[in-house]
Amino acid sequence: MTTLDHTHDPELQSWVPSANAAEGDFPIQNLPFGRFRRAGTAEAWRIGVAIGDQVLDLRAAAAQSGWAADVAPLLVPLAAGDLNAFMALGGAARRTLRQALSQALAAGSPQQAALAGCLVPQAGVELGLPCRIGDYTDFYVGIHHATAVGKIFRPDNPLLPNYKWVPIGYHGRASSVVPSGTPIRRPRGQTAPAAGASTPGFGPSQRLDLELELGYFIGAGNALGTPIAIDDAEDQVFGVALFNDWSARDLQAWEYQPLGPFLAKNFASSVSPWLVTLEALAPFRAPFTRPDGDPQPLPYLDSAANRAAGALDIQLQVLLQTTAMREAGMAPALLSTSNAAQAAYWTPAQLVAHHTVNGCNLQPGDLLGSGTLSGPTLAQAGSLLELSQGGKQPITLPNGETRVFLQDGDTLILAGHCERPGARRIGFGHCAGTVLPAL
Amino acid sequence: MTTLDHTHDPELQSWVPSANAAEGDFPIQNLPFGRFRRAGTAEAWRIGVAIGDQVLDLRAAAAQSGWAADVAPLLVPLAAGDLNAFMALGGAARRTLRQALSQALAAGSPQQAALAGCLVPQAGVELGLPCRIGDYTDFYVGIHHATAVGKIFRPDNPLLPNYKWVPIGYHGRASSVVPSGTPIRRPRGQTAPAAGASTPGFGPSQRLDLELELGYFIGAGNALGTPIAIDDAEDQVFGVALFNDWSARDLQAWEYQPLGPFLAKNFASSVSPWLVTLEALAPFRAPFTRPDGDPQPLPYLDSAANRAAGALDIQLQVLLQTTAMREAGMAPALLSTSNAAQAAYWTPAQLVAHHTVNGCNLQPGDLLGSGTLSGPTLAQAGSLLELSQGGKQPITLPNGETRVFLQDGDTLILAGHCERPGARRIGFGHCAGTVLPAL
Repeated sequence: MTTLDHTHDPELQSWVPSANAAEGDFPIQNLPFGRFRRAGTAEAWRIGVAIGDQVLDLRAAAAQSGWAADVAPLLVPLAAGDLNAFMALGGAARRTLRQALSQALAAGSPQQAALAGCLVPQAGVELGLPCRIGDYTDFYVGIHHATAVGKIFRPDNPLLPNYKWVPIGYHGRASSVVPSGTPIRRPRGQTAPAAGASTPGFGPSQRLDLELELGYFIGAGNALGTPIAIDDAEDQVFGVALFNDWSARDLQAWEYQPLGPFLAKNFASSVSPWLVTLEALAPFRAPFTRPDGDPQPLPYLDSAANRAAGALDIQLQVLLQTTAMREAGMAPALLSTSNAAQAAYWTPAQLVAHHTVNGCNLQPGDLLGSGTLSGPTLAQAGSLLELSQGGKQPITLPNGETRVFLQDGDTLILAGHCERPGARRIGFGHCAGTVLPAL
Repeated sequence: MTTLDHTHDPELQSWVPSANAAEGDFPIQNLPFGRFRRAGTAEAWRIGVAIGDQVLDLRAAAAQSGWAADVAPLLVPLAAGDLNAFMALGGAARRTLRQALSQALAAGSPQQAALAGCLVPQAGVELGLPCRIGDYTDFYVGIHHATAVGKIFRPDNPLLPNYKWVPIGYHGRASSVVPSGTPIRRPRGQTAPAAGASTPGFGPSQRLDLELELGYFIGAGNALGTPIAIDDAEDQVFGVALFNDWSARDLQAWEYQPLGPFLAKNFASSVSPWLVTLEALAPFRAPFTRPDGDPQPLPYLDSAANRAAGALDIQLQVLLQTTAMREAGMAPALLSTSNAAQAAYWTPAQLVAHHTVNGCNLQPGDLLGSGTLSGPTLAQAGSLLELSQGGKQPITLPNGETRVFLQDGDTLILAGHCERPGARRIGFGHCAGTVLPAL
């Protein structure tokens, strides 16, 4: 695990004034990476680092003098717009650049004059996917979610015997992962035959749902045939973003056996634009613990470091704004709050070790979804399937509207941040999407 | 469907003498695309077309004069080594180039002198993956396989109620798709607790298996949110290759519920090097039929053209050569033979229409695995799981060795060809891999 250093000092201030606002997501302690271009253009993506309400344009920044000799080469792929190539350089490169960016953006930095012209207001940019995603895997680490959903699909057998041993995961669709803000077209598909019918239904999904997840993005990765040991695993995680794995529950119920979800998921998955690095998350680590009576992981999924601080203490929120709320000028309503450390039965390091134990290769930019991070209570549920108790209990919104699943025009927003005594609060921004009617 | 034209004329001969051999896979009627480089080098991949025992180097060929004005631009991406960019141009471009290549390689062609210097012997090249594979989906269209395997995993419920309505599919791992000839490292992983044990097993898979599949490679594809109608679907298939979806049955049995296979599959999948185009397969089409009493597909999966000729009449073979056989100079032994048209319950067009009906986007070079193409009898089984009847009945090889599942050192080979009265036989080459011991 990354140790704390001066880049985490809660007193550290930036010469970018907005970065010093108390509740901001992007203080100098954060420094997440993303891809941006001027809004309304089709320019090539540039790599930037969020700082306050600005983006530091790394192409422009790389052209300035003042970078140390070991830093300048790291800026070359970033200046070229290729975050994946920088991810491939591994954790040491990431940490070297973090130190340099922290110094460069700190109050009193001799680089201020040169870099001030490299800032672009976030309000004027479009943010894309943070990197090219080669492969996307979705895990299922939320044990409270797995139990609640299991009760709906398999009332007699909610949590299967493998759950506490195997970090359950499956492959998702990389081509339909979209950046926050992309509208989500309601999917059409088959549904189980209605009672008494012999033919399946077909039409727009009537049970469109969200899934509150984190996305772990891979750094250097591994060669095919070469597993990553648990104590080397976390260094292969470049950063973390918010992730909404939109799900059509009615399509899923009919199609998912025996080979798992397919069209119920692959119409779209949304990711937030900023990759918050593992280094930025260092002050917000939590022990990996198991409830009394639960088995300890097999040796390839267990280590002292993982037990001590393998989990991520990230606060998560789900918010919804309906068309009526938007038209009335009402803010999005909070549907639920959760915490990744409390919700997740497996840590990011365990997911990497498990994914590669058979020799499977992870590549720079690959995305591992955590699975739905529901907490133990209903108020902490990360999906409408849970919040509405399988579609049976409508939720009432502040304006009196009710929801069981998502309606056309609804905007669903995920948010996340980390906050602890003695540490500077950092945030993830938002992961948002608005539902469009089916074709 | 592509109509027959002079490129399919069984009497057509090439000025490349080896292309005219009676039993060869690559006569002038075939013209499949692949990526090659000089063996033993790390040169950039070039695009080539197989002709007899030669490869026509399209970079070298593009530099020759004699191409028509509508053909020369099509050669630009191919000369640059980017088959995906050519795939993105769609079916019309593919057909135009087929006509031009057929004329150029035909006996008596005025281009013979110029192109003779653009041939490279296949014996001197390494063949890579035929293109970049962005996403890989595996289907499950082999109804005899699904029934046989279902009996092993779910004796009371072999074929689930959705099977005859939904072309069952799931996402696979693109990063671990490897070209024919790549050694396959035996995977390690968890297995179900032994009888009386409370802890899962862990170690090298003891039930390593093959799956005899076809790989359908996508051409132009579709934009996210825009389904492909069944009558437009087949034109989105660029070509077909042999595909072995290696499987660790013991890992699969423990991990696959509720979200499907994962580590049991993603350690490796092998693909043959040559993409045989849909145009080359035009003489080998078969009707799509359903057994009496089975339901007809829903409208989005049904069309007159698909019913008339949606299936592919491709002969398939599974061969095995053990270490002892290799050392004794024995040829690989035939384990089974099958036919894609008889084995598949769904056509390629139906897979494309289903995959996109919810708006999921397919991109140039994406791979759709057919699923295991077992015929109705045991001698037509496309996996050892079936051939050994769930691991209970060892197979005896010609040298007296027996096999239940694959042993270290075994070389597994898939082969395929098309043969019909009145048509020139064409072949797919081989898809081979040798099992390495676990780490």
